[in-house]
Amino acid sequence: MKLKLPQVTVSRLALYLRVLEKLSRQGQELIRSEELAERCGVSAAQLRKDLSLVGAFGVRGVGYQVRALEKEIKRILGRDRIWHLALGGLNELGRALLAEERLARRGFRFVAAFDWREEWIGQVIQEVFVYSLEQLPYLVKESDLEIGVITLAGKEAELMAEKMYQAGIKALLNLGPDPLELKAEGLLIHNADFTVAFDLLAFELTHH
Amino acid sequence: MKLKLPQVTVSRLALYLRVLEKLSRQGQELIRSEELAERCGVSAAQLRKDLSLVGAFGVRGVGYQVRALEKEIKRILGRDRIWHLALGGLNELGRALLAEERLARRGFRFVAAFDWREEWIGQVIQEVFVYSLEQLPYLVKESDLEIGVITLAGKEAELMAEKMYQAGIKALLNLGPDPLELKAEGLLIHNADFTVAFDLLAFELTHH
Repeated sequence: MKLKLPQVTVSRLALYLRVLEKLSRQGQELIRSEELAERCGVSAAQLRKDLSLVGAFGVRGVGYQVRALEKEIKRILGRDRIWHLALGGLNELGRALLAEERLARRGFRFVAAFDWREEWIGQVIQEVFVYSLEQLPYLVKESDLEIGVITLAGKEAELMAEKMYQAGIKALLNLGPDPLELKAEGLLIHNADFTVAFDLLAFELTHH
Repeated sequence: MKLKLPQVTVSRLALYLRVLEKLSRQGQELIRSEELAERCGVSAAQLRKDLSLVGAFGVRGVGYQVRALEKEIKRILGRDRIWHLALGGLNELGRALLAEERLARRGFRFVAAFDWREEWIGQVIQEVFVYSLEQLPYLVKESDLEIGVITLAGKEAELMAEKMYQAGIKALLNLGPDPLELKAEGLLIHNADFTVAFDLLAFELTHH
């Protein structure tokens, strides 16, 4: 199924899903759009509009069924399955990602890690084995690695991206400092520098 | 100076700034809007529109002056100064943040870290001292702590947020898994779950 949605809408759906998953764990069955919107920090009108885009409509005076809505958003986001991840770069950020319970719980599973540094190769970190890059093509096939997650900078990041692409990985999430310059047919690249969150806050503090 | 810009625009300005900083380090003096746009992964029209919003106009056939544009975006984003950060939570993510050269280099300086856990208190991690929470009010004043960065989950996150607010911190960046429920007069809260980047990629892989 093809569905085109602006990135900001998908981000908000991901946020709604986080809140719904929490409500669901707490055993809540129904939620009114006003309450869900407040918990997510958006307006009720925005929430209803976003949810109607993905075909979810609440019942007037009753609201949404938590589990049904959770399931539907999961399906739309591609979160109703397990994704196999390869980590590229065993720095502090890389090790924090391997330890992230949020990712494992949500179906983003690191299956293998890769680095050039001799001291890392052969180690097991958070139950994930660290391989040398020569083993990458074999492991992409054998372990069905789909997403490469890069934490490196500059030329190291570019080289890791190229190796991953050549080994058959279809998508790269670059969490390192530099936007990837690699252009490759059929390869999906997301540059997602999480430090932008600090800029957004500094901007608000400067202009509020 | 008050300036209102949509969050997506501020995010793009932060991205342009990252690329400009890199060009500036490499000694490049001029850049055409088409090239800058391509390096940032946006259209040239989008880039020109964003830059005109902040009063920066390129010269036809010449482009933008790298250093002048870098300086202007820095000023607008509030990145032309040092921000004093307090870390709340010494988990894997917290330690990765203390090690983030990107933050230090961009003026986001962790000055103190806080945790409840006895094993952390008194340690020095990446040159940052870990204090107990009782010392928070004193340190906010003494070290002019402005931004609290929270990496904890659930009730621990809420309690840390409350303590930071009571101690006089004016803004919280919550990088933990749960949106903060705390509402407090004059307190700016940003919930920025970086794992949303994984959802965005999963969505694209599912629908492309």
